[in-house]
Amino acid sequence: MNSVVVRNIRRADPAAVGRLARFGVATLHEAQGRTGLMKPCLRPIYPGAAACGTAVTVLAQPGDNWMLHVAAEMIRPGDIVVVGLASENTDGMFGELLATSYRARGAVGLVIDAGCRDVGELRKMGFPVWSRAVSARGTVKATPGSVNVPVVCGGAVVQPGDVVAADEDGVVVIPRAAEAEVAGAAAAREEKEAKTRERLARGELGLDLYGMRDALAKAGLRYVDDPEQAG
Amino acid sequence: MNSVVVRNIRRADPAAVGRLARFGVATLHEAQGRTGLMKPCLRPIYPGAAACGTAVTVLAQPGDNWMLHVAAEMIRPGDIVVVGLASENTDGMFGELLATSYRARGAVGLVIDAGCRDVGELRKMGFPVWSRAVSARGTVKATPGSVNVPVVCGGAVVQPGDVVAADEDGVVVIPRAAEAEVAGAAAAREEKEAKTRERLARGELGLDLYGMRDALAKAGLRYVDDPEQAG
Amino acid sequence: MNSVVVRNIRRADPAAVGRLARFGVATLHEAQGRTGLMKPCLRPIYPGAAACGTAVTVLAQPGDNWMLHVAAEMIRPGDIVVVGLASENTDGMFGELLATSYRARGAVGLVIDAGCRDVGELRKMGFPVWSRAVSARGTVKATPGSVNVPVVCGGAVVQPGDVVAADEDGVVVIPRAAEAEVAGAAAAREEKEAKTRERLARGELGLDLYGMRDALAKAGLRYVDDPEQAG
Amino acid sequence: MNSVVVRNIRRADPAAVGRLARFGVATLHEAQGRTGLMKPCLRPIYPGAAACGTAVTVLAQPGDNWMLHVAAEMIRPGDIVVVGLASENTDGMFGELLATSYRARGAVGLVIDAGCRDVGELRKMGFPVWSRAVSARGTVKATPGSVNVPVVCGGAVVQPGDVVAADEDGVVVIPRAAEAEVAGAAAAREEKEAKTRERLARGELGLDLYGMRDALAKAGLRYVDDPEQAG
Amino acid sequence: MNSVVVRNIRRADPAAVGRLARFGVATLHEAQGRTGLMKPCLRPIYPGAAACGTAVTVLAQPGDNWMLHVAAEMIRPGDIVVVGLASENTDGMFGELLATSYRARGAVGLVIDAGCRDVGELRKMGFPVWSRAVSARGTVKATPGSVNVPVVCGGAVVQPGDVVAADEDGVVVIPRAAEAEVAGAAAAREEKEAKTRERLARGELGLDLYGMRDALAKAGLRYVDDPEQAG
Amino acid sequence: MNSVVVRNIRRADPAAVGRLARFGVATLHEAQGRTGLMKPCLRPIYPGAAACGTAVTVLAQPGDNWMLHVAAEMIRPGDIVVVGLASENTDGMFGELLATSYRARGAVGLVIDAGCRDVGELRKMGFPVWSRAVSARGTVKATPGSVNVPVVCGGAVVQPGDVVAADEDGVVVIPRAAEAEVAGAAAAREEKEAKTRERLARGELGLDLYGMRDALAKAGLRYVDDPEQAG
Repeated sequence: MNSVVVRNIRRADPAAVGRLARFGVATLHEAQGRTGLMKPCLRPIYPGAAACGTAVTVLAQPGDNWMLHVAAEMIRPGDIVVVGLASENTDGMFGELLATSYRARGAVGLVIDAGCRDVGELRKMGFPVWSRAVSARGTVKATPGSVNVPVVCGGAVVQPGDVVAADEDGVVVIPRAAEAEVAGAAAAREEKEAKTRERLARGELGLDLYGMRDALAKAGLRYVDDPEQAG
Repeated sequence: MNSVVVRNIRRADPAAVGRLARFGVATLHEAQGRTGLMKPCLRPIYPGAAACGTAVTVLAQPGDNWMLHVAAEMIRPGDIVVVGLASENTDGMFGELLATSYRARGAVGLVIDAGCRDVGELRKMGFPVWSRAVSARGTVKATPGSVNVPVVCGGAVVQPGDVVAADEDGVVVIPRAAEAEVAGAAAAREEKEAKTRERLARGELGLDLYGMRDALAKAGLRYVDDPEQAG
Repeated sequence: MNSVVVRNIRRADPAAVGRLARFGVATLHEAQGRTGLMKPCLRPIYPGAAACGTAVTVLAQPGDNWMLHVAAEMIRPGDIVVVGLASENTDGMFGELLATSYRARGAVGLVIDAGCRDVGELRKMGFPVWSRAVSARGTVKATPGSVNVPVVCGGAVVQPGDVVAADEDGVVVIPRAAEAEVAGAAAAREEKEAKTRERLARGELGLDLYGMRDALAKAGLRYVDDPEQAG
Repeated sequence: MNSVVVRNIRRADPAAVGRLARFGVATLHEAQGRTGLMKPCLRPIYPGAAACGTAVTVLAQPGDNWMLHVAAEMIRPGDIVVVGLASENTDGMFGELLATSYRARGAVGLVIDAGCRDVGELRKMGFPVWSRAVSARGTVKATPGSVNVPVVCGGAVVQPGDVVAADEDGVVVIPRAAEAEVAGAAAAREEKEAKTRERLARGELGLDLYGMRDALAKAGLRYVDDPEQAG
Repeated sequence: MNSVVVRNIRRADPAAVGRLARFGVATLHEAQGRTGLMKPCLRPIYPGAAACGTAVTVLAQPGDNWMLHVAAEMIRPGDIVVVGLASENTDGMFGELLATSYRARGAVGLVIDAGCRDVGELRKMGFPVWSRAVSARGTVKATPGSVNVPVVCGGAVVQPGDVVAADEDGVVVIPRAAEAEVAGAAAAREEKEAKTRERLARGELGLDLYGMRDALAKAGLRYVDDPEQAG
Repeated sequence: MNSVVVRNIRRADPAAVGRLARFGVATLHEAQGRTGLMKPCLRPIYPGAAACGTAVTVLAQPGDNWMLHVAAEMIRPGDIVVVGLASENTDGMFGELLATSYRARGAVGLVIDAGCRDVGELRKMGFPVWSRAVSARGTVKATPGSVNVPVVCGGAVVQPGDVVAADEDGVVVIPRAAEAEVAGAAAAREEKEAKTRERLARGELGLDLYGMRDALAKAGLRYVDDPEQAG
């Protein structure tokens, strides 16, 4: 395996990250055309977790967290570390000592396609992690991987420097080049949804508000009065 | 596929629903002879969630939440919406906009054999959802299903108008016709358990209280003093 | 099947259990050489759950909680009940009535390779449980198993009388004979980690602190300045 | 639990079953509007397995195959036994002895939402089984369930007397009342597919044959010459 | 971790292994009181695979097959190698090169709680393997484990020298001390089953043959003529 | 979503594909440094399946196989179609009609991160498919995706034009640019393995052949004569 650490990556613009951080993951995912979402097996380790930052990526070996130590040196304030795995693994590769180090370097969170431990301490620290599992299983430091290469995490491709946003609904990747467009679309979506919400709250139906009745009829939906007519 | 919305369903009696709502899911499941329970993969999206209502049922397509919009019109106060899927899917078919609409129509909750999103907002709203997954994944509105037909959700059959009760232990379906009998049996069970609890809390053994010793001996259970005799 | 209850087991020394109880599961697991950890599918039923005690073991049949009643009589103050299953099962074998009985006997918690119910009540009682699932599914009392024989729970072997520690990170088994050694190693580890934490918090890198740079270079890790050189 | 065996069920007409048996599961599932299919976790125990018969249904307890013995008496020539489970279980509830008995009674196969064993012998006998798992795990005979009541198996509802068809693609349930209509639709579908197959084999495109180009364009699909234009 | 290779183990008597090898896994599992069975996730890599031998045990690290090389030296003719994992892993730790080596040392098969590769070649060689997965994923040789210590594989405890039998139904462990008793019980069971099979094949019902009717009635099973009476 | 079909892709050189096709997936995966392997959940639909070709990629929606029809037009002889999914789905998106069309266009196989049906017919045709599931579930043609854009399939990134090789061990992606280097490394590896195989077959130990003894001792592995010394 070609093990490499890339020192210089092009990070998304901090101001753009700030604009994106105002939105939830569901909104951002919709705003960029329903792409970039990680699989739902990646869950936050505590309720209310939320983070948005620029990705420092790690490719790690199963049962081995050596590269998570290597990655610390590459972290800059505002980064979120994203760890892909060479093969499926749920060991507890990250805990409060690494979190202490990552925070000292300025990291805002971690997304890992493996396990996490010390979740009680991490909750107290307020260091948010999204992981596939919680596991106390310790790991070795024996086989190198890479830092700041493209990785697949939760089924999504992450390029170093991409924006990664995460909350209780999951994790979404926004390519560096798309940040402005997505922020704009998200804002437009929120504005529109605010109006929709108000109308729905008053009891108006989405069927009417979104004008769905014709399309439904054309698609073959029938209304009947009684179960006997459902056949 | 035969896509149909049934307008008139026979709902369980609101007074009966009120009586059932006083009991936990485990008690109701036992009270009706250990039937009607959904599989444990259906979980509440926040701790403390609880709901009991009459089922408006939805059969939805994978990755498509069109019928959840159609169902809104069929909701009456006290209903709980139950969504079965044509095939396995974990996409985020339901979020806070639909919850706003459902609440405005009087719904008390949602049970969905797929994913849910906006869980932070739903917790703030206090709108309880039981789902197979939390996922921000957006869905299309392209293929109709049905509303108020019998569905399978979490491995259990739900008829429109059945009582559906849900709490942190899971989700149970009580057929409309059985509501009175189940409420009675549940009340009897609770009363009996209150006495049992008191005796157990004082240190009495279930073995004696339930009179199990003879049956255990007959079933072949042996007591030995030491590990060496365990053979 | 040979169904047996062993009355007398050699329990770990209460003082030793007390010493071990001060440490988290991750620390204990590391301190005994990364052994004895149960699989991460065993999860606490509420946040903040923690327990440490001497194991009373149960081998139960799928869908049958008879032996959990039998086990109650064997509990002494400071015990934690550990339930292995004859085959995979997620039914709700344990609830608040059994918890009331177990607590009255002095149990500090339960670890079960199956399901648990009444989780709302158990949280209110503060009776911690680690289980594979939450399920309201009721169980029969028809087929005996055993109590206080060696069991496999969450993939780990548990001997009656072993120390079992559990928290939000998982569950670890410490053989009775190893308790003193593990407590010592855990204390040493915590002391060392306190110093490490301080240095990491100041921004020092693990790479330097742990002296990893040479080993990484020897293992083939290369640093490059730009993505184009990563190839 | 209400344990009952229903002696007299209305079976689908044997001639209709014979007509349906000529078609594959995928065709039958499509012919009845994409309904009635069991989940793909139900797999044949050997390649080439195929069966079509009238359902004798069984509701069994986890780890308990008592009702499979009870069901034998209800089997008539041409029946297929369908076993739903009260809770999730993969134990080996069925093996060659039961298969010998079932075959002597005229059964053409078994579909079980649990495990099967003796698969080598069953393959030699040519007795086809669709199951969730292969497992040698033995079961008890301690708790009754029911025979010939509606069951959920693989997520599909099966009524006693329904037609159940199974092959390497899975298992489909055809309601007794729908048998003639489905057989007709399946035949029409096969006829149409034969013509389609011929045209596709000659290299004609489905895009043209099915006339999809306009709908795709309307749905927003763009064709570009080069990756750079894909943006 | 304490990494150790134990050179001398007490193997089951070859004559006893030979007697056990005549029986299927389901029979052996029943003959020893339904114990010792591995979980059904362990599957043979090709149909018809069967093996019975004395266990050489391996405790391996995730993603690391170093100890499988170490184990080769400990193999004696008639051994079957059983690999437990320090944490869950499906990498392809074993392939045809290791199989060539193992066969040269006299091994009759492999059971591994991880992945296997080169399954086409292994089928041609006729070297049977039971594994959790088939995976081409390569592994490192970086971290030692142990050989000939007790391991957990597929949820069952295996002591070095135990008899391990495997076929299409799964894998069962027979403790060295129990070999004679289990072989006797298996023979008795087969003899009895032969008579039962004959009677079942003639159409006699298990209900009568096993005398189940009274017990079923006592357990509450009711027979009714029509669905309407099932209530 | 941005739905696009890219007409012109740069395919790997056919001669290079031919050279790679001589090797198994495990060898190719090792030869390119243990990268590019899809997850083991992707399995061939019949034993002995093998294929190697240039990737035409498809991004499909859950429950919707429209884009598989669109992709047919883009197939050139020697291509293998690789389908990634917008969200997890196991529906039977591909069957013998599409296979007939794909074969007529020159495709050598299909890799799909979803389900496949008509597996009996596909086996008869000899059209190899690797899929996550076998399912008869039908799909709609309602929502567009893309063709010949980068996709994630089985956790691996596939670029249009990459070489994809698949056999019973799984599926591996070889980037177009790496084809020559990988073919060379694979040939060298096979040559070396042939010699190793011969020596292992003669009973030589990998420990000696690979010179592992020193490294093992340095890593802390101890040899003891008896279990009592294992401690």
